[in-house]
Amino acid sequence: MQLTDIYTRGKAYFENKEIGKLLDYVETGFVATNDRRILDRFTFRQRCIDAGKADTATRVLGVDLATPVIMSSMTMPIPAIADGGLMQVAAGLKAAGSLMWTGTPIPANLDELVATGVPVAANVKPLKDRTKMYAEIERILSDGVAWLGLEVDAAVGTKIADREMGFECEPLSVAEIEQIKNNTAIPLICKGVLSREDALKCADAGVDAIVVSSHGGHTLDYLPHPLQVMDEIIHCLEGRLPVFVDGGFRRGSDVLKGLAFGAALVGLGRPILYGLAADGKDGVAALVEGITRELSRLMTMVGAPRPDAVMRGTLISD
Amino acid sequence: MQLTDIYTRGKAYFENKEIGKLLDYVETGFVATNDRRILDRFTFRQRCIDAGKADTATRVLGVDLATPVIMSSMTMPIPAIADGGLMQVAAGLKAAGSLMWTGTPIPANLDELVATGVPVAANVKPLKDRTKMYAEIERILSDGVAWLGLEVDAAVGTKIADREMGFECEPLSVAEIEQIKNNTAIPLICKGVLSREDALKCADAGVDAIVVSSHGGHTLDYLPHPLQVMDEIIHCLEGRLPVFVDGGFRRGSDVLKGLAFGAALVGLGRPILYGLAADGKDGVAALVEGITRELSRLMTMVGAPRPDAVMRGTLISD
Amino acid sequence: MQLTDIYTRGKAYFENKEIGKLLDYVETGFVATNDRRILDRFTFRQRCIDAGKADTATRVLGVDLATPVIMSSMTMPIPAIADGGLMQVAAGLKAAGSLMWTGTPIPANLDELVATGVPVAANVKPLKDRTKMYAEIERILSDGVAWLGLEVDAAVGTKIADREMGFECEPLSVAEIEQIKNNTAIPLICKGVLSREDALKCADAGVDAIVVSSHGGHTLDYLPHPLQVMDEIIHCLEGRLPVFVDGGFRRGSDVLKGLAFGAALVGLGRPILYGLAADGKDGVAALVEGITRELSRLMTMVGAPRPDAVMRGTLISD
Amino acid sequence: MQLTDIYTRGKAYFENKEIGKLLDYVETGFVATNDRRILDRFTFRQRCIDAGKADTATRVLGVDLATPVIMSSMTMPIPAIADGGLMQVAAGLKAAGSLMWTGTPIPANLDELVATGVPVAANVKPLKDRTKMYAEIERILSDGVAWLGLEVDAAVGTKIADREMGFECEPLSVAEIEQIKNNTAIPLICKGVLSREDALKCADAGVDAIVVSSHGGHTLDYLPHPLQVMDEIIHCLEGRLPVFVDGGFRRGSDVLKGLAFGAALVGLGRPILYGLAADGKDGVAALVEGITRELSRLMTMVGAPRPDAVMRGTLISD
Repeated sequence: MQLTDIYTRGKAYFENKEIGKLLDYVETGFVATNDRRILDRFTFRQRCIDAGKADTATRVLGVDLATPVIMSSMTMPIPAIADGGLMQVAAGLKAAGSLMWTGTPIPANLDELVATGVPVAANVKPLKDRTKMYAEIERILSDGVAWLGLEVDAAVGTKIADREMGFECEPLSVAEIEQIKNNTAIPLICKGVLSREDALKCADAGVDAIVVSSHGGHTLDYLPHPLQVMDEIIHCLEGRLPVFVDGGFRRGSDVLKGLAFGAALVGLGRPILYGLAADGKDGVAALVEGITRELSRLMTMVGAPRPDAVMRGTLISD
Repeated sequence: MQLTDIYTRGKAYFENKEIGKLLDYVETGFVATNDRRILDRFTFRQRCIDAGKADTATRVLGVDLATPVIMSSMTMPIPAIADGGLMQVAAGLKAAGSLMWTGTPIPANLDELVATGVPVAANVKPLKDRTKMYAEIERILSDGVAWLGLEVDAAVGTKIADREMGFECEPLSVAEIEQIKNNTAIPLICKGVLSREDALKCADAGVDAIVVSSHGGHTLDYLPHPLQVMDEIIHCLEGRLPVFVDGGFRRGSDVLKGLAFGAALVGLGRPILYGLAADGKDGVAALVEGITRELSRLMTMVGAPRPDAVMRGTLISD
Repeated sequence: MQLTDIYTRGKAYFENKEIGKLLDYVETGFVATNDRRILDRFTFRQRCIDAGKADTATRVLGVDLATPVIMSSMTMPIPAIADGGLMQVAAGLKAAGSLMWTGTPIPANLDELVATGVPVAANVKPLKDRTKMYAEIERILSDGVAWLGLEVDAAVGTKIADREMGFECEPLSVAEIEQIKNNTAIPLICKGVLSREDALKCADAGVDAIVVSSHGGHTLDYLPHPLQVMDEIIHCLEGRLPVFVDGGFRRGSDVLKGLAFGAALVGLGRPILYGLAADGKDGVAALVEGITRELSRLMTMVGAPRPDAVMRGTLISD
Repeated sequence: MQLTDIYTRGKAYFENKEIGKLLDYVETGFVATNDRRILDRFTFRQRCIDAGKADTATRVLGVDLATPVIMSSMTMPIPAIADGGLMQVAAGLKAAGSLMWTGTPIPANLDELVATGVPVAANVKPLKDRTKMYAEIERILSDGVAWLGLEVDAAVGTKIADREMGFECEPLSVAEIEQIKNNTAIPLICKGVLSREDALKCADAGVDAIVVSSHGGHTLDYLPHPLQVMDEIIHCLEGRLPVFVDGGFRRGSDVLKGLAFGAALVGLGRPILYGLAADGKDGVAALVEGITRELSRLMTMVGAPRPDAVMRGTLISD
């Protein structure tokens, strides 16, 4: 199935369904419009003479992937879309050589997902009840995931349209993040960084990577697109840790822009849901493979043999 | 009732009603389009690590408020919307810990509004018949309001669509403003400042605060959005007096932008009417509380514990 | 009749009429879109404290006018709109204290128009047959007009949509313009200047004024809006001669922008036709008076007592 | 037939036809939107006083043309539009004094096209099977074309919407381009340059001209409009070789922009198809002649007597 078909069928699935409301953006929906506006601002400086064929494979924090295109952390609507939805997503991502990233709630069958062989990351929220939060972390670690994610940007909970979601959260301090890091053997990744200040705090706390993200438009309205703050973040970090990004990425061309800004990995949220809704595990695989194929053609044509070789200067903006 | 519902119901109420025409913007309606365009230009630099919970309470010119979100000066269409409309607005604003600001005509029951316990401000227009203007001021003062407002921007009257309104006004001089100030025991606030020149004249005349405002799009077409001139005004005033702002603010995210530009209070005009039309005094309270709740979440997430702690640098513009 | 009504009725008149095609813009119609886009780019810095009441009256090249709002040169569709259309336009403009400016063809009853008492300007085209052109000039002068206009921008003829109009024209040289000037006792005005080079040539040829204009979108596609080149033109002329402007001006707010850029007069083309179509000579008068009334309110509120006192800094652009 | 008619009829021909899908743009279709957006960014600084009549004739790489407007390389959909479609295009272009440029597949009757007397250029793709590529080159040369074109930008094949086209291609090296040049007696032109790096490589390889092009939106999504990179390319080449351009050019005004940026020739792709579909060879001739006529009027009015005399400063951008 081709990408346009996946998006068309996937979106049609959610239309006029109660479950479709879970994909709505916070408050006015500005984030969705702005995501596309910012991504559309950039075009590519082609450099195809003397180019070699690009390879999209990459190794990040000890994990080998066939593509820098991964899943953004998410759990909730997946089981409702298809029987064994999470397992299907795992299978699709594995087939595509990608990574699975779960969100809230932490899947009951997290160990089974890990057992499929797909690399798995799992997030926790900064619950006010820190005891409960630490228990969740311990449970995630015991399930054998590759990375642990911390949603620093869920500090006042999440929100869909006008509806605040019932998570009792509160902001994390640098000291708390450092403590979690010191008690975690696997890589710790903070998700939801949108400023140099928070990025530096993460680096100082010793986290292994950050995700520059506006949380899929499910926390605060009028958050910038991650690419609006990537330059300041990449610059201030001076290469101390890898940076991932997500937010409205839909095609290989979008992913190339994320890489050009310095992202090591680019996450997909709703597209994974569309893939699953359109064709189960095959739809998920087709989605990631289709985007990766587009990315591969583009990488070759801008003279970037590897994901980390896409230069900032590849982007034309005006 | 949630904000989207309030706006939907409130706007529906005015549709195809004669009274709805009172909400039309002057001449071509450019002001409304531009208000949204300018507000949509800004997104937020999130700083949520180490953040403390924000408190929206504020004290301005001796008045304690639970929120920096107040009513913009207005009288006219309110009594026509609901029985005892002004009293309902007063009750709603009081419940939300906000401030009521009346306009033209000066309410006959201004003393009753004051008696509800909500802080009340009341405006006068710069009537050509200065004797009448001074009589109006005296009457307002005798009713026990908290602040007196002077509509310097109604100097050639008001206008809705192509229709000029029948007020006989003419521009105020600095000397006149100074005289009014010297004869007024309570704070005097000039409304409708849109340039550094007028802002400095207000400061020199000794007024206690100004409202940067385009008068709800009811005076002149092609006035800028207040945020287009806030920087020059805040800068030239050097903190000599507090600055309020209104013009197209609809959600907590809009209010945060006003605060980031240096406003001490942010006024709502049409939204108050929508709240009243949607659900009476409860609708007014729900509106202000809903916006304040959004603001509170945002303040926490940008690291601003109090309304006056929102930094200009919180805004990303491009 | 109010402005919105005049525009609504006037446009309705031309809809689906053969004559309506004469109002179409050249080729793709880009000029119309761009005219509005540029005019919409500017808002006003209000300065209303200490403001005196503005007077729109002005005296330009020996002609006294009640308003800087005049007619743009035009003849063709007017007689087809109403019986005695040109005389009605003359009467309407006279009532409004404005100026009439005829175009192609030179009206047979030009002397009658002059006899109404309205100040009249009349244009000639740069006909290849210069003998014929000089004959036309002589005839215009003998009819007693106030000013003679020269359409330098009709040098390759005019064009409506895809249709070139049958005028045999060719570019004028500076020497020719100078010669015409030397043989003309009344003020000579070159219309259709859009660059500093042409402006300086006009000044060097001794012409008395220029009109910065894109010819109502009836010559070349993708001409800029006059305000896009006004700054360079005003600056290079160093005040040697007055500059007029036209192009998409519709309301008093548009006119104020022309004045702020340094125009002494602002021309209206299609709006005059709409006024005539909507209500004959009364419609023409109501149009100019309505726009002038809007202008007057604005001038007062930006602190400009006279048309030539509107400052460039009144405009906010971003 | 006028240009608007040609475009209207031509587009109608392809609507809802299977063949119409061949005109679709790659992936999201962003290229088409961006092409128009960039072309619409520029307007013209008119300089018509002292102007002489412009002549659009030009001589490029030994070929005399009546117009700088030529056909962009293309073969595929032409034979399906009309009987003897390629011969009709040749006849139409010859009548207009233009140049024919064939693409993929290389026409079986290339020699017949040459025999019509129209100057013909023909492209080869960078086939992985270089032996086959060299055979194709030899065959083209033996057919007597004026220029040989090399599609450097088809290095990962072409793509329409989501469908990759079955050409087995791979990037060319500078050494290969140099080798081809050394074995070709006629001018060699590289098509599909979009960066200074590739432009300089072409110059260093000794090619005779380049075409700055996004391949009609049939290779990669989010390629810039050629005018977004023309300045950097023209500047870096320092006049070492002529530069052609194509990409969304539709009218004489678009062509003038190409010339102002320094292009020696401007190519038309889809418009040729529309001309053929609208009226066979006469439609092709009418299209090129109509655009050339528009160009001629514009050149006169901006003071450019020849195509290579259009100055960069003619363009106003903001």
